[in-house]
Amino acid sequence: MDLPVEFLNPTEELACRLDAQDVLAHIRDAFVIEDPDLIYLDGNSLGRQPRRTAALLEDVRQREWGERLIRSWNEGWYDLPQRLGNKIARLIGAQPGEVVACDATSLNLFKLAAAAVKARPGRTKIVSDVFNFPSDLYILQGVGNLMGGGYRLELIPSQDGIHISPEDIEAAIDRDTALVCLSHVAFKSAFLYDMASVTEIAHRAGALMLWDLSHSAGALPVDLHGCQADLAVGCTYKYLNGGPGSPAFLYVHSELQTQLDSPIWGWFGDRRPFSFELDYLPAQDITRFMVGTPPVLSLRAIEPGLDLLLEAGMERLRSKSIAQVEFLIALARQVLFPLGFTLGTPEQAALRGSHVSLCHPEAYRICRAMIETEPPAVRVIPDFRAPDNIRLGIAPIYTRFKDIYRAIRRIQEIVVEDEFLHFPPERLAVT
Amino acid sequence: MDLPVEFLNPTEELACRLDAQDVLAHIRDAFVIEDPDLIYLDGNSLGRQPRRTAALLEDVRQREWGERLIRSWNEGWYDLPQRLGNKIARLIGAQPGEVVACDATSLNLFKLAAAAVKARPGRTKIVSDVFNFPSDLYILQGVGNLMGGGYRLELIPSQDGIHISPEDIEAAIDRDTALVCLSHVAFKSAFLYDMASVTEIAHRAGALMLWDLSHSAGALPVDLHGCQADLAVGCTYKYLNGGPGSPAFLYVHSELQTQLDSPIWGWFGDRRPFSFELDYLPAQDITRFMVGTPPVLSLRAIEPGLDLLLEAGMERLRSKSIAQVEFLIALARQVLFPLGFTLGTPEQAALRGSHVSLCHPEAYRICRAMIETEPPAVRVIPDFRAPDNIRLGIAPIYTRFKDIYRAIRRIQEIVVEDEFLHFPPERLAVT
Repeated sequence: MDLPVEFLNPTEELACRLDAQDVLAHIRDAFVIEDPDLIYLDGNSLGRQPRRTAALLEDVRQREWGERLIRSWNEGWYDLPQRLGNKIARLIGAQPGEVVACDATSLNLFKLAAAAVKARPGRTKIVSDVFNFPSDLYILQGVGNLMGGGYRLELIPSQDGIHISPEDIEAAIDRDTALVCLSHVAFKSAFLYDMASVTEIAHRAGALMLWDLSHSAGALPVDLHGCQADLAVGCTYKYLNGGPGSPAFLYVHSELQTQLDSPIWGWFGDRRPFSFELDYLPAQDITRFMVGTPPVLSLRAIEPGLDLLLEAGMERLRSKSIAQVEFLIALARQVLFPLGFTLGTPEQAALRGSHVSLCHPEAYRICRAMIETEPPAVRVIPDFRAPDNIRLGIAPIYTRFKDIYRAIRRIQEIVVEDEFLHFPPERLAVT
Repeated sequence: MDLPVEFLNPTEELACRLDAQDVLAHIRDAFVIEDPDLIYLDGNSLGRQPRRTAALLEDVRQREWGERLIRSWNEGWYDLPQRLGNKIARLIGAQPGEVVACDATSLNLFKLAAAAVKARPGRTKIVSDVFNFPSDLYILQGVGNLMGGGYRLELIPSQDGIHISPEDIEAAIDRDTALVCLSHVAFKSAFLYDMASVTEIAHRAGALMLWDLSHSAGALPVDLHGCQADLAVGCTYKYLNGGPGSPAFLYVHSELQTQLDSPIWGWFGDRRPFSFELDYLPAQDITRFMVGTPPVLSLRAIEPGLDLLLEAGMERLRSKSIAQVEFLIALARQVLFPLGFTLGTPEQAALRGSHVSLCHPEAYRICRAMIETEPPAVRVIPDFRAPDNIRLGIAPIYTRFKDIYRAIRRIQEIVVEDEFLHFPPERLAVT
């Protein structure tokens, strides 16, 4: 999808025309859309539900659990983490056998970060950045605390609150660095790292590189293996549309799998989990990073979303996402910036993911007005991110240009009509 | 339910009479029983599905995820781990706020075991036993390996392969012991520890006590708080009937919650997870042992099973379980022991949980014949546990005396008719 020059004049008519031209438009019909007047721009917190999920879950409940009971472990449950991992691998540029679906993102980060620092003895620094998702920073702080040896976590600063500069990356990573752990796309500003060049900087210093793909998997093409990335984790409930809290994934480069030890030795990471030996013997492949019995209902629900993304193709989704974000920013520039909004996201498409942060001192109350409006006004669901971010997620697999147009116009209306003043200036507890 | 003297003559007529007298019999109707000719004696591996689960899961899928989307986090998802934890607490003798439902059992064991040994600096021994579930032993080995400091895992031996003697427990636990970690009911022999006395021995030595309740929660009354147990973990997919791989639970005595540090610092364990601060600040309650976003579909499915157990009452369930196990053993003694079977489970009801291990050199092939029989023969689903155990799980909430009678008679038939010889002498991969 080319970026039309008409973005200089982002009208409703243009939005409808772009939707009509969208070669991926039909895939929206594969998702549950209960309320056509709800504009959902929070697919980067919890993705929509594929229609196929209903029949799949019903079969899992009725036949697999209800009827087949324990026998289902031998009829498809047992290798599900690897089978789903191999589908996820195709979305993130990994090879078969390099990805497994299991546990929560933070847990997977713990396992891989602890394994990584142990594999670089004598080095005492873990590098991350001020944009990283707080849970990632907490996990890294905890790993440093647990492993002893005086680890310190150094955060690459941001000069402008939106970007991380190449110079600051270079300056932070040195011969004392055991691990560099970054979110590929920042959860707030949407800043997108150049995975190849940062991985290369880490490797040049002898450090291992761990990427959190929570805001990039399913949003843009990722080439883990091509970039020689060592490790990665990511979430399946955002752009992968796997369902609330659906199990995360982890990636370990094939050459590293037997060199790294998981800090958590569970039976699903053992080489012979059903021979019930008394001594742990780690599996010789990606499964050594698994731990316990996976939550099957949640795990089973991941597959329909993956299939839709594979069908759409990550290159086409990225083209559409860029066009939609450009359209959003052009319209915001025209109608919101004069009202005191600023852009909290990189201007350049190559430097950002698939969401946009609009900053405003009244962001919290504006978000509440967007969400809590009664029909017939248009309701829009964004994310509020403290202190002043309205985060609008573009999930190109189901978001329409028309949705973006209506959402921005609705924000304009809320501010112009002072609707946000009806809400108290407190903080939401949203994920 | 009193134990009738007629157990000396365990007939089919007696089984039917006991079922007719069973005050809990009606609760069986609250479970999905797809195939009335399948005798399911594996509820200690994967419990049956409550009927109410279907409507609940459909509502979670259709309304909570499909329609309410991200808003559901503020409409019941966010405090679900604590809410379910408080229901589980009532089944295991814990107080409100002492239990949370999260992660897999092995992961919870890792968190609590690592926290415990760190809280006993200078002590280098972790005590478990040769009966413990292998994943528990692997986790403890991994904790010792990870924490440095030369930890060693000492396993209390069994003199007869069925019991653990009080003398051997006393001998293993000393002033160098940081942690005693045992399965309350052994997964193979069903040996049941006296929780109060073992906890007291651990405390007398200054060690912390961690119980794995996977084979006791929902099978028999547990009194964690009354026994002053420090820590516990357990599984919800066995006797709690929460669904395949449903999230586990963990218990931390209220007085210990702020004294112990989780080794994994995730945002769900932080005091203010949605203020997105850069530094971890552990919650001041049980939630500090949580890590990441829970798998909501699997977590939601736990509740119907808990409600049924609370309705039945653990004391009544234990009485029924004891009567059923006595009936099973009496019949096995009459018709199976003459065929070369032996009892791999304690004779005394007070020393065992709710399953029975029958040992036979051809256990593996007998199990396959039990499972793979074509109708109209009765199919029975046990667990095979290497090398020679046929494990028959009694889930008193839905198992009938008639089921037990038919199952034992069917095993007799398989051996008398040499049906097991049709199967190759290999090993099943069952959970």
